[in-house]
Amino acid sequence: MANHVAQTLRSSMIYSLRRCTNSRLASRASLQSHPGCSYGWRIPRRSISHYRPISSAPPSAAQAQHEATCPPQTILVVNKLRTEPVIKAIDELLEHVKKTYPGVRVFSEDRPDIPEGAEVWRPGPQAEKIDLVVTLGGDGTILHAASLFSLGAVPPVLSFSMGTLGFLLPFHIDDFVKGLEAVFHGKATILDRMRLSCTYYDKEGKKVGLDGNEWQVMNEIALHRGSSPHLNTIDIFVDGQHLTEAVSDGVIVSTPTGSTAYSLSAGGPIVHPSLSAVVLVPICPRSLSFRPLVFPSSSSVTLRIGDRSRAAAGVSMDGRVSHVLNPGDSVTVQASPYPVPCINRSSISEDEDERQGEGVGPGKEDDWVRDINNLLQYNATFRSKALLRYSRT
Amino acid sequence: MANHVAQTLRSSMIYSLRRCTNSRLASRASLQSHPGCSYGWRIPRRSISHYRPISSAPPSAAQAQHEATCPPQTILVVNKLRTEPVIKAIDELLEHVKKTYPGVRVFSEDRPDIPEGAEVWRPGPQAEKIDLVVTLGGDGTILHAASLFSLGAVPPVLSFSMGTLGFLLPFHIDDFVKGLEAVFHGKATILDRMRLSCTYYDKEGKKVGLDGNEWQVMNEIALHRGSSPHLNTIDIFVDGQHLTEAVSDGVIVSTPTGSTAYSLSAGGPIVHPSLSAVVLVPICPRSLSFRPLVFPSSSSVTLRIGDRSRAAAGVSMDGRVSHVLNPGDSVTVQASPYPVPCINRSSISEDEDERQGEGVGPGKEDDWVRDINNLLQYNATFRSKALLRYSRT
Amino acid sequence: MANHVAQTLRSSMIYSLRRCTNSRLASRASLQSHPGCSYGWRIPRRSISHYRPISSAPPSAAQAQHEATCPPQTILVVNKLRTEPVIKAIDELLEHVKKTYPGVRVFSEDRPDIPEGAEVWRPGPQAEKIDLVVTLGGDGTILHAASLFSLGAVPPVLSFSMGTLGFLLPFHIDDFVKGLEAVFHGKATILDRMRLSCTYYDKEGKKVGLDGNEWQVMNEIALHRGSSPHLNTIDIFVDGQHLTEAVSDGVIVSTPTGSTAYSLSAGGPIVHPSLSAVVLVPICPRSLSFRPLVFPSSSSVTLRIGDRSRAAAGVSMDGRVSHVLNPGDSVTVQASPYPVPCINRSSISEDEDERQGEGVGPGKEDDWVRDINNLLQYNATFRSKALLRYSRT
Amino acid sequence: MANHVAQTLRSSMIYSLRRCTNSRLASRASLQSHPGCSYGWRIPRRSISHYRPISSAPPSAAQAQHEATCPPQTILVVNKLRTEPVIKAIDELLEHVKKTYPGVRVFSEDRPDIPEGAEVWRPGPQAEKIDLVVTLGGDGTILHAASLFSLGAVPPVLSFSMGTLGFLLPFHIDDFVKGLEAVFHGKATILDRMRLSCTYYDKEGKKVGLDGNEWQVMNEIALHRGSSPHLNTIDIFVDGQHLTEAVSDGVIVSTPTGSTAYSLSAGGPIVHPSLSAVVLVPICPRSLSFRPLVFPSSSSVTLRIGDRSRAAAGVSMDGRVSHVLNPGDSVTVQASPYPVPCINRSSISEDEDERQGEGVGPGKEDDWVRDINNLLQYNATFRSKALLRYSRT
Repeated sequence: MANHVAQTLRSSMIYSLRRCTNSRLASRASLQSHPGCSYGWRIPRRSISHYRPISSAPPSAAQAQHEATCPPQTILVVNKLRTEPVIKAIDELLEHVKKTYPGVRVFSEDRPDIPEGAEVWRPGPQAEKIDLVVTLGGDGTILHAASLFSLGAVPPVLSFSMGTLGFLLPFHIDDFVKGLEAVFHGKATILDRMRLSCTYYDKEGKKVGLDGNEWQVMNEIALHRGSSPHLNTIDIFVDGQHLTEAVSDGVIVSTPTGSTAYSLSAGGPIVHPSLSAVVLVPICPRSLSFRPLVFPSSSSVTLRIGDRSRAAAGVSMDGRVSHVLNPGDSVTVQASPYPVPCINRSSISEDEDERQGEGVGPGKEDDWVRDINNLLQYNATFRSKALLRYSRT
Repeated sequence: MANHVAQTLRSSMIYSLRRCTNSRLASRASLQSHPGCSYGWRIPRRSISHYRPISSAPPSAAQAQHEATCPPQTILVVNKLRTEPVIKAIDELLEHVKKTYPGVRVFSEDRPDIPEGAEVWRPGPQAEKIDLVVTLGGDGTILHAASLFSLGAVPPVLSFSMGTLGFLLPFHIDDFVKGLEAVFHGKATILDRMRLSCTYYDKEGKKVGLDGNEWQVMNEIALHRGSSPHLNTIDIFVDGQHLTEAVSDGVIVSTPTGSTAYSLSAGGPIVHPSLSAVVLVPICPRSLSFRPLVFPSSSSVTLRIGDRSRAAAGVSMDGRVSHVLNPGDSVTVQASPYPVPCINRSSISEDEDERQGEGVGPGKEDDWVRDINNLLQYNATFRSKALLRYSRT
Repeated sequence: MANHVAQTLRSSMIYSLRRCTNSRLASRASLQSHPGCSYGWRIPRRSISHYRPISSAPPSAAQAQHEATCPPQTILVVNKLRTEPVIKAIDELLEHVKKTYPGVRVFSEDRPDIPEGAEVWRPGPQAEKIDLVVTLGGDGTILHAASLFSLGAVPPVLSFSMGTLGFLLPFHIDDFVKGLEAVFHGKATILDRMRLSCTYYDKEGKKVGLDGNEWQVMNEIALHRGSSPHLNTIDIFVDGQHLTEAVSDGVIVSTPTGSTAYSLSAGGPIVHPSLSAVVLVPICPRSLSFRPLVFPSSSSVTLRIGDRSRAAAGVSMDGRVSHVLNPGDSVTVQASPYPVPCINRSSISEDEDERQGEGVGPGKEDDWVRDINNLLQYNATFRSKALLRYSRT
Repeated sequence: MANHVAQTLRSSMIYSLRRCTNSRLASRASLQSHPGCSYGWRIPRRSISHYRPISSAPPSAAQAQHEATCPPQTILVVNKLRTEPVIKAIDELLEHVKKTYPGVRVFSEDRPDIPEGAEVWRPGPQAEKIDLVVTLGGDGTILHAASLFSLGAVPPVLSFSMGTLGFLLPFHIDDFVKGLEAVFHGKATILDRMRLSCTYYDKEGKKVGLDGNEWQVMNEIALHRGSSPHLNTIDIFVDGQHLTEAVSDGVIVSTPTGSTAYSLSAGGPIVHPSLSAVVLVPICPRSLSFRPLVFPSSSSVTLRIGDRSRAAAGVSMDGRVSHVLNPGDSVTVQASPYPVPCINRSSISEDEDERQGEGVGPGKEDDWVRDINNLLQYNATFRSKALLRYSRT
């Protein structure tokens, strides 16, 4: 039963706060609620175009999009480190949930240090349905959490930072009470962060690895010569059509979310995460004229190591080195039908804070605008107005 | 009556050949068919995600998308130059239409040199409905043709080059018979090229110009200091939220189509024209960290000349300098509900030409892949394998 | 008599503190010392390769380089604005000089608001020899000061900022006592900032303008289409050899000093000002493969407006728009024999401040390293370690 | 005795044809002439500023620069491959030398396949003096040849391509007769290609490797994380002063010669090889504001792996991976006193070929201008003028 949240989220990006009545919500989008519950996800006031992979969207996607849903009944807590602050934070969080949201079950991955009060959760077809994922840590923790749902929809993810900054880290751990409140009171807004699925083929075109399943990446897949002295030769195909032969250190295929990660370092553009697009950026190409490319998310991009490539290419997915592609091997990258629904920072803004008349106020602010300014120091202009005096420098 | 084609096209990018029946075509997009005709636009075999502005797409868009429609009853011929080859080509084209497609009316803009056999056409609310636009010339001619339909939907555009190359020039004039045949036989495929509408505001926020109407650009709007010795200071807002202050020569807001034009020169990425996106690129910014940005087409971008900007900004829309924005003035740029439906080069590929087993064949080839390779010399690798001999260089 | 300082400086970049003896100073550069004085310019401990234009360096350059010279006998004060703080600062400076360095004559440009106690100075062949230029203001003031000596050597320039920051602004006005002291006590170190001389030719190859003299720029010469809708076509020659045809908004030829100005905005590299080099950068070229070029300072670069260029090119020298080059016109740019000797910030560092064991200490510090970090925020890394909490942002 | 050529070349870049007289050639660079011979290296008509490392240039450098010298008495033939065409070419070359320049000794490296008629040559202090190096192969062969003289001056290098193109490959093997003739008749002109010497230090600052000697690179030294999942943290110092901390895949320090190699791929500027400069370019930096830097050749650049760097850095010198730098380790890079004197393509131009009135003619042409156009396809403009027709594409 509880999986409906995830199912709903899969095909939609922004969810609206609606009172669930017993009835059928009388919206044009034919919402349905669980009887008696009153719940939903808020729509930010700005409209955001959303991700809907054309080839994979189930026929019911359009209808499902605004389905009603209920407060989470199950929470999966994900952390990588077990440092003192993390342990303490989890304990407080569990206590808070127990007290404030009684009846909600809290799960933890199966590891020796299960927090007290949490049940063990194991991924797989028989896994308990999870309504909400709570992560404590950095970007890596979120990527790990998402990977636990690599075969299907991902539940909404509420991410708490232990102190570091990141595009995927909307909340500080000190704000966990507010964050949970936003979710349980139906005030949370969500950004569906597109993922890419990667399918590997050998020289003969036979699918390899993962029992026929695909890898999902949230940031990027990167092919790189690693420490080989030779450049890679990679044939790039778009929708089966040969685009170009890249002679380079490597090639990155990135999501909009990943456009502020490795792709940015390689010279790629910054792409708003609510756009459905695929970014292709070469790494140190042996060419003056290799410019970053942006494709629609319906495109499929194939990278094939040239038969005469003198170097094999190491594959790195979301920063984790996985395996090696030899000449003739290839990988095909496409938008995944399973984005990661990330709860926005603006979910916890106070209504009373709403500034008026100056554009976007809390609740509708775009985290991303703030982040590229704060985190990337985007367009930091040259300093010229400050005082300069020798004795002060 | 004949406007139904354009109306249909507005909400759809790829049109399929379908039997027109007399029946219930009247969708909300007010489709009407010619009784008994059998006609349509082909779907390329590769799926292309298409442009559908969220605010304007009628609910029935999805259904309307593949609705049948009928062969053109009216053609508007657009040319800028009246050189000998152009005159000759138009005469031949008119003769061919008269002979091959009797009953089809051909129009020309109201100018002294109306070709014999063409009727005068004047834009405006009372204008004759046009089913097909045929252009002879370069990109400028297409931009001009599109501007004749600046207040609403644009009919499909069939563009013939007189010898120059361009991303918007799929056909050589020598192939005009084949091009028309593709359209009249319902074999043509279409790429809806997104446009941007630009609304200007003065210091007090009052809309200015064009009797309240908006300008439509197919490539880009560029603000530039021109020959002022001072840099522009431009505040950039996205969906009403302040993004950054650009101190620069200027700023470009571009469509994917425009991403291979001025935006490319300024350092922007190459964006596939079937993606719905808005590209923001600074021109010579006074900053090390101003990277190109790509937004979803639902975003509205406002450029406001800073109150203390020492330079005014000249506005250039699709390369035509129009007017000047003074400090406090602003322009808001959004995806237009009226894209330009451009007939693809692959429309005239012969079925018997179809290559097999090597990816995309005629009829499904992506013109764009060919164009960035042929026109931009994309990723031209360094030469190293050719013979070099002094006496031969 | 007083011109000997400038003459010496012309062929040398770093001057050392040396005892002046009465004896044989008269090198070919016609050095003369004040009898009995002990004076000079300091060599920073780090060796800096210096600018010595091959064609103009006198044979004795190497020897002349560390020749002794004497304290300034004449000072030219240059300012552009006459704001209250500037007036006050000049008055204080004059009083200080009068009291501390009696016998030193202070000059001012011929304008209505000559400060009390200053004599009028007019440029030209009959001009009083100037030993030291003192500027108050921003970069523009320094460029103006340098332009007063456009026909020959420039005296050392001691630049005081009134509050703004800049690569050419080593000292804050509050430190003027220390700055003068460094110069008069022979502790000042100098960076010869290369200039470019620009010679204009008409279609017929006839030199035009300035009575046969050349313009000198300290930052760059930029050709730009300004507000023309058409791109420039500019043929670029290096040492008479055709390098390429630039189809672009324009082209910049820059000094290393200018590499952190307009050239940087156009995508150029950052070049250390003690390198003798010429940087060529296109402005928004219609090409994917136009990379910035760096030439030796012995190169001569000619920019010629193509005969079929649809746009004329506005010429801007050090940011001042001067005139227009029409198709067929050209400009040849070469290293000027007359650099601008700029007194370094490190000149006023206290010996007792010298940090030990941690690399460069005061007196040897490279202003440039500090400036690109402080002013350009060079390589500002992404923030990730700070705390982020919603309520605090 | 024969080493005088190399010795002379060390301090000079362009050598002039001068009559050798018997007299006082013995400069500090230990020049010796063959009595009565008339010989030298030509000065191209364009003046090229030349490389003269400040620390190492002997006082007599200026004078020595145009000193006469004599035809080679010893030739070292260097090749890497022993393919059929190479074997054949060497045989022909040896026969030609034997017949045309009797008395000249030809050497080969000590390997099993010494060509007939060649003597074995072994590098080291006791090595036979070599007057001319002849290479057959690609860039790698030249780099190898240069490395044989890693401890001191390199003799002039005459490079023959077996078919591939390259910046270091002026001549096709078919032209070997002309190439040798240019050298033996004193018509060859030379470009001194700067090298960088690399000294390695461990955590404690102790010099490591090579018995205290330094590595010499002609293109670049690159530090790279290789296949580590973590970024490198590298502190960069210039002349002992901390410049910045690079968090990146790696960092490249390049010569002007190397500016068209790996540095170019990483985004560096193109630097004319006759400029004495050091280029610093990051590889995929985690920063928006890391722009390439160009330093004077007198600068010393130190790259130190940060103590907390999570990745070690693989070192690659001229493309050959050598060893690994761990946190705390560092390398200091400086201009080598021993450039590689490369014989220019223009050396074999025929006088009668000289075009007149159109800029640079044979004998003064700049190979580099031709090469960046031919090899890099520099500034390849977009195609627009050619005919485009479907059936022809």
